Amino acid sequence: MAETFVIAQGGGPTAVINQTVVGATIEAQKLYPGCRVLGALHGIRGIREGNFVTLSDLSEEALLAVAATPSAALGSTRDKPDAAYCEAVLDSLRNVGADAFINIGGNDTAGTQAMLAEASGGSIACIHAPKTIDNDLVENDHTPGFISAAEFVAGAFLSVDLDFRAMRGIYVGIVMGRHAGFLTAAASAWSLDEDSGPHLVYVPERPFERSRFIEDVRAKEARHGRCIIAMSEGVAGPDGRSLVEHLVPPEMLERDQHGNVRLSGTDLGQAIERMLAEDLPGKRARVDTFGYLPRGNIATINEVDAGEAFVAGAFAVRAAEERIGSVALQYTGTETTCRLVPLADVAGKTRLMPENFLQPEESNVSSACRDYLARLVPRKYNVARPFV
Amino acid sequence: MAETFVIAQGGGPTAVINQTVVGATIEAQKLYPGCRVLGALHGIRGIREGNFVTLSDLSEEALLAVAATPSAALGSTRDKPDAAYCEAVLDSLRNVGADAFINIGGNDTAGTQAMLAEASGGSIACIHAPKTIDNDLVENDHTPGFISAAEFVAGAFLSVDLDFRAMRGIYVGIVMGRHAGFLTAAASAWSLDEDSGPHLVYVPERPFERSRFIEDVRAKEARHGRCIIAMSEGVAGPDGRSLVEHLVPPEMLERDQHGNVRLSGTDLGQAIERMLAEDLPGKRARVDTFGYLPRGNIATINEVDAGEAFVAGAFAVRAAEERIGSVALQYTGTETTCRLVPLADVAGKTRLMPENFLQPEESNVSSACRDYLARLVPRKYNVARPFV
Repeated sequence: MAETFVIAQGGGPTAVINQTVVGATIEAQKLYPGCRVLGALHGIRGIREGNFVTLSDLSEEALLAVAATPSAALGSTRDKPDAAYCEAVLDSLRNVGADAFINIGGNDTAGTQAMLAEASGGSIACIHAPKTIDNDLVENDHTPGFISAAEFVAGAFLSVDLDFRAMRGIYVGIVMGRHAGFLTAAASAWSLDEDSGPHLVYVPERPFERSRFIEDVRAKEARHGRCIIAMSEGVAGPDGRSLVEHLVPPEMLERDQHGNVRLSGTDLGQAIERMLAEDLPGKRARVDTFGYLPRGNIATINEVDAGEAFVAGAFAVRAAEERIGSVALQYTGTETTCRLVPLADVAGKTRLMPENFLQPEESNVSSACRDYLARLVPRKYNVARPFV
Repeated sequence: MAETFVIAQGGGPTAVINQTVVGATIEAQKLYPGCRVLGALHGIRGIREGNFVTLSDLSEEALLAVAATPSAALGSTRDKPDAAYCEAVLDSLRNVGADAFINIGGNDTAGTQAMLAEASGGSIACIHAPKTIDNDLVENDHTPGFISAAEFVAGAFLSVDLDFRAMRGIYVGIVMGRHAGFLTAAASAWSLDEDSGPHLVYVPERPFERSRFIEDVRAKEARHGRCIIAMSEGVAGPDGRSLVEHLVPPEMLERDQHGNVRLSGTDLGQAIERMLAEDLPGKRARVDTFGYLPRGNIATINEVDAGEAFVAGAFAVRAAEERIGSVALQYTGTETTCRLVPLADVAGKTRLMPENFLQPEESNVSSACRDYLARLVPRKYNVARPFV
């Protein structure tokens, strides 16, 4: 029976990742009265350096306040451990008497758990709990953090669409998303009707071509009197390289330890703005980069998302009995439940949007995608159709 | 006694401008039973072209649904009328039997009302009702639309500050604001404590110098372990010209009919990102352009703002008895009230942030500014201090 749990957070924060920390802490205290729950500061880096906070010393009231606060209260890291780093982390875990280590994050974090599980030879339970606004973990119907971020994007595009009905023009919103377009697709979640934007959706799953893009914009603007566009930071050319890699001088390209090129939404946004100015001169066109705004925004914390993130943490504690695995949010057809799946099934893998989530001919989402979004991110507000 | 009112909207939409339309419509129906209230589509352009919708035909339920919807339901315009345009507008107003024309907008719209009032020789009451997220109308303590946009900015910066506590680095959020920095300053409204961002605030009221900026960032990052920056689109160099004018090739500079240069937040954001990469190499730095996201965002419609916008519309209808003037939101020391002020006092004038809203030495807001923001945009959410 596990009596010391260590919890850490990895990768980009979300609006509800603290719910998972607190869900795990409260469940551990319920199942193992008197247990210790340690939070590692800045992920595995904090473990290596021995920086912990004792979560089980906090009152339930204090824990619930942490849960309700967006971003990663324990701090995060993008460190990718090598063998020596893993050994240092395991030494520190042994040093604090850890029976189980729950690491909350995306597929890179799942990869870290797989390495630690192997290096520990099973002496410490290693559980991965899911988190990512990108919604790109395999085995998951959706991931904690996605719904809240999607709600931000859905509301923003509904609002901008109304704005551009009042003052006609072309609008591009650049949304985070390296390989998977789910968050960008969420721009469509709250469309009012056939006339509503986004009229075009560009995601990393489909090659982006300038000439096709300009033709698309011209056609949609002619039809709707405006053209609202959702575009992922990670859109790539026909050669498979992201547009940003083409745009940024090689010496300015920044990579993290997992080899991911940093995608500057600002660089992409500026390039798109120039394309529109050059190829559609005289048209009013505006580009915004959403960047960090959706991912831990306090104004759009979704209650279902918060609840699921909490439950995923609690489930991770119960799953520690199994020693190793990744918590996955799966959909039964009527409800979302947690299941423990093999770490290797999730680690380092990226789930892309299913082919049928995109229209075959148009640069837009399909009705299958709209159905999925309607289930996860139902529209929260009633709006009146404008007179224009 | 006025029996036909015409209402129009001018300039950029806000989250609550429809409240003013509906406040005016409902008040007119109350004061003048059986009156007609016409809404002009796309502002004075719609009047000139005879495009109206009969607002007084709608049920109160339908009107209240319009009021609750962000952006300008009637559409908007940035047309600046010349003498012939004014004559055409007045002809159309006479044609529909208008006794009063209420035009909702900023200082350009107030200027339009002043021209129409003069050209009509007093035959049609011309009232300006205030609206702008920029909060830059003289005679007003604050303007309808500002509080909701400010709430978006305040929540976004609180959230991003938490994000950058978890993953250290430099963050710049570029916020709309041509001449006045109020909306950018709102980034400070929900700061938790002395350590909280934004650590630097750059507004159009103070010259921006690259070397000073870099030194500021270096110092704040050393002190806080991160540096969160709020910057107005309209920041200008020591020569008084906006940075964007320096950055964009002259042939790509876009001006509206009022002579305003279009400020691309994306151009500015990209330039700032490059400055940081060049002068602080190796630092994690991110830049987002908020652009249109704050101004009519459905997720941050503030109830006080909505209520004040409604009341301003109702007041404009009562003020029509005075024939001419601009509705101003003034603060008595205990409450916000409407007053009618001369159109000439508001038209074409820009209210900047008071000198004492900025710290004399630091690039940041003062306690006087924080007090003002605390009164208008009190923090809506409880958050727990993170462990890092």
